[in-house]
Amino acid sequence: MQPKPQIGNLPVYQPGKPIEEVKRELGLDQVIKLASNENPYGSSPAVKEAIQAELSSLSLYPDGSAVELTRALARHTGVQEDQIIFGCGSDEIIALIARAFLMSGDENIMADQTFSVYRSNADIEGAVSVEVPLVDGTHDLSAMLSHVNDRTKIIWVCNPNNPTGTIVSEEELTAFLDRVPGHVMVVLDEAYYEYVTDSSYPSSIPLLSRYSNLVVLRTFSKIYGIASLRVGYGIAQPEIIRLINQVREPFNTSRIGQAAAVAALDDQAFVKECRTKNAAGIEYLQKEFKRLGLAAFPAHGNFILVDVGLPSKEVFQSLLHKGVIVRAGFEKYPTCIRVTVGSQSQNEIFISALEQVLGLEKAQVQP
Amino acid sequence: MQPKPQIGNLPVYQPGKPIEEVKRELGLDQVIKLASNENPYGSSPAVKEAIQAELSSLSLYPDGSAVELTRALARHTGVQEDQIIFGCGSDEIIALIARAFLMSGDENIMADQTFSVYRSNADIEGAVSVEVPLVDGTHDLSAMLSHVNDRTKIIWVCNPNNPTGTIVSEEELTAFLDRVPGHVMVVLDEAYYEYVTDSSYPSSIPLLSRYSNLVVLRTFSKIYGIASLRVGYGIAQPEIIRLINQVREPFNTSRIGQAAAVAALDDQAFVKECRTKNAAGIEYLQKEFKRLGLAAFPAHGNFILVDVGLPSKEVFQSLLHKGVIVRAGFEKYPTCIRVTVGSQSQNEIFISALEQVLGLEKAQVQP
Repeated sequence: MQPKPQIGNLPVYQPGKPIEEVKRELGLDQVIKLASNENPYGSSPAVKEAIQAELSSLSLYPDGSAVELTRALARHTGVQEDQIIFGCGSDEIIALIARAFLMSGDENIMADQTFSVYRSNADIEGAVSVEVPLVDGTHDLSAMLSHVNDRTKIIWVCNPNNPTGTIVSEEELTAFLDRVPGHVMVVLDEAYYEYVTDSSYPSSIPLLSRYSNLVVLRTFSKIYGIASLRVGYGIAQPEIIRLINQVREPFNTSRIGQAAAVAALDDQAFVKECRTKNAAGIEYLQKEFKRLGLAAFPAHGNFILVDVGLPSKEVFQSLLHKGVIVRAGFEKYPTCIRVTVGSQSQNEIFISALEQVLGLEKAQVQP
Repeated sequence: MQPKPQIGNLPVYQPGKPIEEVKRELGLDQVIKLASNENPYGSSPAVKEAIQAELSSLSLYPDGSAVELTRALARHTGVQEDQIIFGCGSDEIIALIARAFLMSGDENIMADQTFSVYRSNADIEGAVSVEVPLVDGTHDLSAMLSHVNDRTKIIWVCNPNNPTGTIVSEEELTAFLDRVPGHVMVVLDEAYYEYVTDSSYPSSIPLLSRYSNLVVLRTFSKIYGIASLRVGYGIAQPEIIRLINQVREPFNTSRIGQAAAVAALDDQAFVKECRTKNAAGIEYLQKEFKRLGLAAFPAHGNFILVDVGLPSKEVFQSLLHKGVIVRAGFEKYPTCIRVTVGSQSQNEIFISALEQVLGLEKAQVQP
């Protein structure tokens, strides 16, 4: 039983520890997780109501075409229904794109520090991944373009980029898209789209009619706050969607996920409120990092990559013992940790813990 | 943007019509769906409680390793935890196995009328599918074995077989496994396992220690009644599970799905009750088919394939207009429809509708 030769040696996925396990192992009463860029404000109250309505239909298969959700999203985004595909998170759409388009020997281009799922899926298909260095934590689109050749199938652009949080502007993006040859698909991963407040950030949906090789990915796992339920989506021209659909299992999203996503989409007031609170959280954290003398990347999603000046895995462990789970171990940034922008109280707990861990707190006179 | 050459021409998935749409289009008040082998008795009441407990954690990612569910299933089945993998339905496990093991030019063997997902996934990988004729609706394991060669990677055995409902016995299966070369994986799809009451049906889990090339697939979508939530699983030796895991996206099952599956597994009284009612339903339907002079295959799952003696798609349409959705269009059995064993009242409605459609009802004197 031989697997594909490239399968055996892929890195094994290491899941993060559940909060409950960290509590038990370290004997902590309170643990906060600022590691997975989850929404600290939960999800719209309308989501729970939508789920309740589905509890009498648990034994029924989901609508394989997600008709109602597709209609709602088409209305919301202004695209046609046949331009939309849903996945078990947008990471499944990445896997489907790779499975439909990448073959052994094909090339795909990505940043050298970005969402790891592009690379892992390209590896599974036996494709060659060309990793182009980020410059100041930002995609170097010109350099990425210079690596395009006849074998290039896909360029992945994560915007905002995970883990650096930086963005490319609409001007930069369109200048890039103008020069990408038609045989190359550009996948624009906008998992954090709804968080961005910078006016230079692209409005990508209108670009779909200008660039037939563009695919936009978004998700209900971040600002919409239903990561638990696994619903992401891709938008592109109908022919691309048709081809991705060819490799999709019919029932890849759940009934509850579909219903919850419809309800979540319908509550844009909740989205706006989360965006506002997140922006305030970024401002607070950046100010605190400055006070502590720490350099951080400009943050456009709901997370910040900050240089703590020490091996990040050690700082990760020290923070863990203080009940704060963050993300560390980014190869290109060995002294940086990525922290999710939490609620104000979570942010304050994190800053206090970080200050102690780094030995930066002011000496306090004990009474 | 060229997809893999084999992708463009795959058949496009045609989803079934939702009950609500059939009602609207045909102006019907009552429509019953006996098309997808769903559990007419829903799911254990404990499932809803487990879901309620998860509604405060919607914004959190699922446990990517499904630790609690894995522990529960390991206890239930008596295998080690590293012998289990979960998927978004067992159809995702089929896709993962194909993606990890099948390459262009590899061969895989399956029955000529069986679950279509084996074939579609082999097609995606560019593998050659050898379809071996069912004999009396039953897997011909000897004939399947005779097609094994150096290029053979996988043999798919659906037991009970979908759509015929037949089984191979433990004796037949072990005689077959004794002769399958070690380089060939045997995937035993037992989606309907819990429904089988025939004493000759294999106890497949103990076979895993004797045959290291065996993979058993089961699901929470059938007797456990949570098709909506998309949880299936595979059990095999740890090394096979490790390799399949290499191509699994980390968060392929939802928090709610995992919690619901734990609760469902814990209520074996519900499972037993459904099995008993299903057996009674089979007995009723088989007796009625006999009364109507219709030949049906022996049924071991929660569905029956019955020969209606007319083009099945016409009978399907006629039944649809009477508010009963069944499955038709099986290439090898063009005059057969597959009907799910419903509740007693659903079964009676179906028989009454079928009798009318086939013109078999006794002439009734209108008062």
